[in-house]
Order: sequence, then structure tokens, then C-alpha cells
Amino acid sequence: MTSSSTPAPDWQFRLAVRWRDLDAFNHVNNANYLSYLEEARSHWLHTLLPHWETQPALPVVASVQLHYRAPIGWPAEVWIKLHLAQAGTSSLSLGHRIESGDGAILHCDGAVTLVWIDRTTGRPTPLPPQIRALLA
Amino acid sequence: MTSSSTPAPDWQFRLAVRWRDLDAFNHVNNANYLSYLEEARSHWLHTLLPHWETQPALPVVASVQLHYRAPIGWPAEVWIKLHLAQAGTSSLSLGHRIESGDGAILHCDGAVTLVWIDRTTGRPTPLPPQIRALLA
Amino acid sequence: MTSSSTPAPDWQFRLAVRWRDLDAFNHVNNANYLSYLEEARSHWLHTLLPHWETQPALPVVASVQLHYRAPIGWPAEVWIKLHLAQAGTSSLSLGHRIESGDGAILHCDGAVTLVWIDRTTGRPTPLPPQIRALLA
Amino acid sequence: MTSSSTPAPDWQFRLAVRWRDLDAFNHVNNANYLSYLEEARSHWLHTLLPHWETQPALPVVASVQLHYRAPIGWPAEVWIKLHLAQAGTSSLSLGHRIESGDGAILHCDGAVTLVWIDRTTGRPTPLPPQIRALLA
Repeated sequence: MTSSSTPAPDWQFRLAVRWRDLDAFNHVNNANYLSYLEEARSHWLHTLLPHWETQPALPVVASVQLHYRAPIGWPAEVWIKLHLAQAGTSSLSLGHRIESGDGAILHCDGAVTLVWIDRTTGRPTPLPPQIRALLA
Repeated sequence: MTSSSTPAPDWQFRLAVRWRDLDAFNHVNNANYLSYLEEARSHWLHTLLPHWETQPALPVVASVQLHYRAPIGWPAEVWIKLHLAQAGTSSLSLGHRIESGDGAILHCDGAVTLVWIDRTTGRPTPLPPQIRALLA
Repeated sequence: MTSSSTPAPDWQFRLAVRWRDLDAFNHVNNANYLSYLEEARSHWLHTLLPHWETQPALPVVASVQLHYRAPIGWPAEVWIKLHLAQAGTSSLSLGHRIESGDGAILHCDGAVTLVWIDRTTGRPTPLPPQIRALLA
Repeated sequence: MTSSSTPAPDWQFRLAVRWRDLDAFNHVNNANYLSYLEEARSHWLHTLLPHWETQPALPVVASVQLHYRAPIGWPAEVWIKLHLAQAGTSSLSLGHRIESGDGAILHCDGAVTLVWIDRTTGRPTPLPPQIRALLA
């Protein structure tokens, strides 16, 4: 069991793999893992800031690190697990794990760093208070 | 100019951004950067092994690291530059840069590690001789 | 209510919209509707022929007709409804409707025609018996 | 030759197929054909109205009809050809053909109908004068 050795995630999201996520090698394509993380993260942000996507400040992906551990097939459901890892004034690092629906297989782990950017200036801006509150 | 300070790439590929690569924030989505790297890499492999995608051994993405430096808009063409960085028995690390069509903007840099996997056993298998020859 | 005026579907599938399905106009992109239909159809085929995707004969899309009635946003779940419309020796037409999760909004209707193709010859081949049985 | 029997297109666009456009059947996925048409159309609109995507009125896809004639593989370049077919006050129908890079193979033909929608009201609005001028 992979989950016994890791702390409980700050957010977990169950995602249904789509057949179109497969590439010509019949496995979920490596780029889709980033879309899976984005989907989990977007729902998490949506619970914290219902209109996060129309706020004056937007979370932008600054860097990602992914380790692909086991291929994902179709049909399947997977768990996307997010861990608050580190925060700066404008940035937030989220650890992540993609696990099989029964938690038995670790498909991917790594981290994504987000930076909040002011839409009008394009410059970094402090994290929204709802996220800052989580870190306190 | 970004290119003056970096060694010549082992492979460069010019890619046309598609409007559908944009997400709802009107920039190329972070996951598409992996598809851009994949497209450049696939053409590079195609020149080395014309039927790489139907060989008994397949290159599988083992890990990726991306730093997003500047957003990409539409319409645009970008350069995808690959650098042979490191090789093991079955694995190959490729440094990469995504630059604007005029070379003036660095959009992304990082590395992708591939592992060659035997299709039937699912186990790592030595790099194809055509790639080994490049490293000699 | 849209569903009162239409016969019960032969198959219905609940699909979670992903944020990445949105395009730069902040609505689900027109091409994704075809992926939604494909996902519902693939699950339907999977219930009839558990290994439909590795059979010697493959269903290939021959034509599609879609009427876009109302935009789809995020987050949302939608119903994809399929109706067996018409069948030939090798072909099958499926009427479809994409409705909001509460059935109140018709997002899209139309039809998709599939042809079963022999993988080795590339020629049309009779419908699988499991599908023929449904039509009897 | 397919091109001899059809009138010259009003717009043609050469598009590079990406490996990721392939699905698990190793052919360009049926939904990607709509993205190909969108890409050609977006460049065409861009030549007519350089900032079409930020105008107060947006072209929205109202209906599509596609006939898939021959699969598309990778690597390949294809021609996307658009024909002004019919126009109303707010709507425009574009006939389309997707042909192989040498013009020898017709991969797809059909039509897409667009409606110009006012961003703020969500209601149909007259075609932009630059498009109306083409139809005169």
C-alpha cells in the first residue's frame, strides 16, 4: 500500500480517465498527467475561492517535476492527491501523487509550483488570503 | 539573445502553436509544453530510427522537470531545442529549451528522461544502437 | 425539461467536464464534444465487448453531425445520451444528445456513424454479433 | 487528383500533424479534425481581423458536418481548405476539405456553420464588415 507511508493529502480528487487520454502506445500520455494535476488543483481552488478563475490575480504554473512510476490504462479512475509543501509571498508548492483508484499503485509523484500573477501588470502578487489562511 | 550563451542544440524543431493550445487564460497551457517537447523528440527519433514507434522497444517518459519562464501566445512559432545530457544503459536525459521563433525569448527550459522499455516484457532494455552511436 | 420529449436513450453516461476542455473563450471547445461522445460510446462498447479496443475489427468514425445548442462551462457534469438510430451490414448510426447534469439544458444533439473495419485489411467488416443482437 | 474537380478554396492552410493527434488506434483522432479546421479558420480570421479573438463579437460554432474519407497518420502535413458557402445576417457556413500534403488524398470534407455572438449579451450580432465585404 502506498498510502500508509505518506501523510494524508490536503486535497484529493477522483478523476475518470478518458479514452482520448491514451496515446498511440495505449497508455495515458505523459502530458495528460499535468492536466490531471491541474484538474484536481482547479477544484481545490474552486472550493477555496469559488471564482478563482476570474479573480484579478491568477495562479500560473512556474515549474513542475514529475516522476512517472507506472503507466495508466483505460478504463480507470485515479486519485490525484495534493500536499501543501511550501509557500512564499506569491508562490505555493504543491506535492502531488497520482494513485490508482484502489490506492495500490503509485502512478506518479512530484511537485508543482504556482505563482500568483496580477492580470493587469503581469507581476507576482501576494497569495490570496484564503490560501494564506491554510498555511497559518 | 538567449542562444549565444548556450551550446548549439543536438536537435531543433520549429513548431506552430495552435489556437487550441491556449487555455481559458489565453496562454498556451502548461501541459502542452510537454506535447511540444514530445513532438520535437518524436521527429528527432524519426530521423534516427524511421520506425521508432513500431520497434520492439519503446521510449517511455520516466521523469520531467520544466521551468516556465515566459507565456506563449497565439499566433506564434517556437523553437524546441534538445540537448543530449546524460545516458545510462537504458535511459537518456534530454535537456530542452523552448524559445520564441526569433530566439529572443526563453519560454521554458528543463529536462526529460526517457527509458527504453521492451514492449513484451515491460522491462528496461538497452538504448537502440543508433542512439548509442550519437553518444560515443 | 428536454428529456420528456425524447425517448429513453440506449445508453447514458455521466461525464465530468475538465477545466482544460475550455478554450480561450472560456467555454468547452467544439472539438471536445466529439471526445465526450467518444467517451460515452467507448464505455458503451466496453460493456458489450469488454475488449472492443483490441478486437480484429475496430469501429471507425465515418461521419458526424453536431448542432451546438448551448455552451458548456466549468465546473459541470453533463449527460451524454446515445440512441441506436440505424444499422447497415458494417455501419451503425448513433443519435446523441449532450444534456446538463440536471437534464434541463440541451447542449448538443446530432448523430455519429461508425463503420467496423478489419484491422488487417482496412476493409469494412460485419458488425460484431453483440451489437447485432441489440438491433434484433 | 481531388483538386481538379473542386473550385479553388477561399483559404488554404498547411498544418503539421502532431504525434499526440494520434489516438490509441494510431490514426489522427476524429475530434482533432475539428481542431484542424479551427486552426485554419482562426488564421483566416486573423488575416481579416487581426484581433478577431478580442472583438466584442465572437464567432461561435453552431453546427458541423464531417465525412471522414481516409485516415491521417504521422508524420504528415495536410492542407485545410475553406470555401465560403453561405451567409446570413449573423451566420456564415464554410465548406471544408482536408487533403494530404500532395493533394492526392481527400481525408475529410464537410461544412462548419459559425454564428457571431455579442460577448456581453450572448445574442447573435451581424457579421463583421470585413467578412461581409468578402461576400459582396
